[in-house]
Amino acid sequence: MEAEYGVTLAFDDDGLVPVIAQDRADGTVLMLAYATATAIERTVETGYAHYYSRSRDELWEKGATSGHRQRVIEVRVDCDGDAVLYRVDQTGGACHTGHRSCFYRRLSGDEIGERVFDPDDVYA
Amino acid sequence: MEAEYGVTLAFDDDGLVPVIAQDRADGTVLMLAYATATAIERTVETGYAHYYSRSRDELWEKGATSGHRQRVIEVRVDCDGDAVLYRVDQTGGACHTGHRSCFYRRLSGDEIGERVFDPDDVYA
Repeated sequence: MEAEYGVTLAFDDDGLVPVIAQDRADGTVLMLAYATATAIERTVETGYAHYYSRSRDELWEKGATSGHRQRVIEVRVDCDGDAVLYRVDQTGGACHTGHRSCFYRRLSGDEIGERVFDPDDVYA
Repeated sequence: MEAEYGVTLAFDDDGLVPVIAQDRADGTVLMLAYATATAIERTVETGYAHYYSRSRDELWEKGATSGHRQRVIEVRVDCDGDAVLYRVDQTGGACHTGHRSCFYRRLSGDEIGERVFDPDDVYA
């Protein structure tokens, strides 16, 4: 069952919509992932970020394994309804590499982002 | 010919990668669009944001019609190489609706974003 919102979401042929997670305190773009209608519903219901893992092909509660959850303060939708923005308070780091943000590299390969945890401690 | 960078980009089956445009001054997430390898190349070469328009099926130089160009200060890539972040100085507004950001609505439908131009003046 699909929840009803004020804005209609435009999911793609696979039933997914891209979601940007942004730190609401300082504006850092933390990650880009995908959500199904169910993932959006769970996010709204629980107040914690849910996505859909395309590699594992399952609903993904961010931080269920690592503890690095995202408290979702606000869900925004773009003009066409085909992209979503979660404004979050991030516990720990968003990236499985241990960086605070998944966008820790320039296209040139320079590493600029901060590493906030050791992935071996979290995903061992 | 695909340009070589320090980071290898993972394009999807359609040759696209999602790109987040973020205002580098205040961190506002302005829009989400898609780029081909050529669009990324043109962005790097010119210093102005290029995307691929899926609706028009063509390379899209942001602001070519509206004048609302994006000077790209930095191109970042995420951990998996399958998402890109343009950090930009935005002229005018990013959204064709006249809003500064395409994410001007909450999921509830509440409008919260600032409108910075009248689209009738720009896209008439």
